[in-house]
Amino acid sequence: MSDTAAEPTRAAPPAPPFDAPVVAVWRGDLVESVHRGRYVVRDARGKTLDSLGDPEGYVYLRSAAKPFQALPLVFSGAADAFGLTSEELAVACASHSAEPRHLRVVRSILRKAGLSEDDLQSGAHPPMHALSAARLARSDEGPRSIHGNCSGKHAGMLAVCVHAGWEPAGYRDPEGPLQKLVRRTVAKLCGLEPEQVRIAGDGCGVPVFALPLQNLAWGFARLAAGGAEDFPEDLLDAVARVRDAMRAHPYMVAGTGRFDTRLMETADLVAKSGAEGVFAAGSPEASWGLALKVSDGASRAVAPAALAALVRRGLRVPAEVGAVVDLHGETVGKVASLTHGDLEAASGGKNLRRSRSKL
Amino acid sequence: MSDTAAEPTRAAPPAPPFDAPVVAVWRGDLVESVHRGRYVVRDARGKTLDSLGDPEGYVYLRSAAKPFQALPLVFSGAADAFGLTSEELAVACASHSAEPRHLRVVRSILRKAGLSEDDLQSGAHPPMHALSAARLARSDEGPRSIHGNCSGKHAGMLAVCVHAGWEPAGYRDPEGPLQKLVRRTVAKLCGLEPEQVRIAGDGCGVPVFALPLQNLAWGFARLAAGGAEDFPEDLLDAVARVRDAMRAHPYMVAGTGRFDTRLMETADLVAKSGAEGVFAAGSPEASWGLALKVSDGASRAVAPAALAALVRRGLRVPAEVGAVVDLHGETVGKVASLTHGDLEAASGGKNLRRSRSKL
Repeated sequence: MSDTAAEPTRAAPPAPPFDAPVVAVWRGDLVESVHRGRYVVRDARGKTLDSLGDPEGYVYLRSAAKPFQALPLVFSGAADAFGLTSEELAVACASHSAEPRHLRVVRSILRKAGLSEDDLQSGAHPPMHALSAARLARSDEGPRSIHGNCSGKHAGMLAVCVHAGWEPAGYRDPEGPLQKLVRRTVAKLCGLEPEQVRIAGDGCGVPVFALPLQNLAWGFARLAAGGAEDFPEDLLDAVARVRDAMRAHPYMVAGTGRFDTRLMETADLVAKSGAEGVFAAGSPEASWGLALKVSDGASRAVAPAALAALVRRGLRVPAEVGAVVDLHGETVGKVASLTHGDLEAASGGKNLRRSRSKL
Repeated sequence: MSDTAAEPTRAAPPAPPFDAPVVAVWRGDLVESVHRGRYVVRDARGKTLDSLGDPEGYVYLRSAAKPFQALPLVFSGAADAFGLTSEELAVACASHSAEPRHLRVVRSILRKAGLSEDDLQSGAHPPMHALSAARLARSDEGPRSIHGNCSGKHAGMLAVCVHAGWEPAGYRDPEGPLQKLVRRTVAKLCGLEPEQVRIAGDGCGVPVFALPLQNLAWGFARLAAGGAEDFPEDLLDAVARVRDAMRAHPYMVAGTGRFDTRLMETADLVAKSGAEGVFAAGSPEASWGLALKVSDGASRAVAPAALAALVRRGLRVPAEVGAVVDLHGETVGKVASLTHGDLEAASGGKNLRRSRSKL
């Protein structure tokens, strides 16, 4: 060939996949459905230790932001002014099940701030705790704002407003002083400028935040580590107190049988899941933060995927295999995380039987 | 270069993706979650007219098989022997909402076959119709088998056993004469040998079938067309009667506000969805069948994806955009099918704002 022959074009390496299969739902010998996701693990300095899929893609934090959203309750001085307990701090970070104890603790925050349930603007939904929901359904009352899983967060936000002299009725306003402070705080923890944190409407009526998945991981690494070197004293104190409140009161952060509760009762982590398949956790001991997003938003995939990622971090947690049970109570399948060897089985339609998930 | 220089290796063309993004869940300006799926459209001769993703990959039919599972009720002679109405045939194909009328019609089948609710082995769950479920919850009764969405299917199966002289109590046995007949019938409609149809346990306690997505499409093309040239007379008659019963009684096949019902009330289709994101439909007029599987199993993605696929077939159906509403009733997002121009937006994390779904 002559010198003027064109060199074969070197194709750009293919972009890494945005996400990858993380959980398979088996029925009998075949994979019935597959959940894809992404995750990132970072240390407290922001160095990425592990990742799957695109770490830069934005994720709506949903309730995983609650520990950050609760920080102003402490660094504003409100928590001390009102004499809030560690348990009350924990419920301010919670997606609680609205069991009787959760409601008592939420009411306690409101009472201490000179407010009541009537000041909550969190929107009503039945308790996440099935038994409590059934009791409520059999009574003549409908669900109220306090039964909503976010009512602790809202109570905490109201308390900040009362302490700071801001109009409590405006606490949800994205342009009001509280929500702007919350946004700055979320940005600060996650290593971003406030304008890099996107805003939309959450389910409960306050702003919800979106930011790159890797920054959520960084935020939880810092939450677990008790902050960062450049944080002011009052923020450092707030981070440590919020982190420790969650770890001391896992039941408050969620409730009976809930994943976040069971995880924090079992492992030395600060953990918080969010709607649409979001999960974040931090290890105070090992100073890392993990952020996971199930791409399709499925809640059933969170525990298997999160536990698999935590096992990769060396945690001794039980690998969770959710049984798929028919109406007769017979097990007909399972929901299980995928090992790399199973990716082909799950994604290749013709070979669904070739390998089973190994946990 | 000399003659002995190696030719550049021609890389095999990349395998087509197993599935592709089909529905995006938006919150504000960003895509929050993405559902991927596959679909196939075939004509009654089995020729593929359209597809997305791997058409050969197996799918568990779940309730999309119900029209096929109901065929023995007709071709066995049971439907005529017991004088079953077209409405009763329709509920035998149903995933009904257990509204009062559904229960009446299911009971009618059982009574005509000399049986009662007590013979149902379908497993109990609350009515899918929220109002009916609330009424039941407020009463002192718990849900019974008849409230289960499959009770019509089970009633039909029991009727076949009574007519054929098979032990009704054994109607669920995968190795018994009824379930073997059902499996052969599913295979026949879908153009397969019975052993190509895989079996596992369904939610309601009878066998569930898995087969290639393209064969589900073929089965619905034939259902819509009233059968195939090589079908025996009694099967042709059964196919036409089951198809026409579903089209005449869309309310029976699902219920108030349900997608299959609304679709069959609006368009000249025979349609049946199934759990884990399965949907199938056939056009009697245009002689095609469509089969869709949402890969992660999400029910919220079925309607947007199915409607988008039907629009590509030339159907005039309203493009369904599901609003995402917060607890205050404010719209904060939407669930919408993806056009090809949006695939990049939905799958590329960095560019989530670039294009909105266009319906």
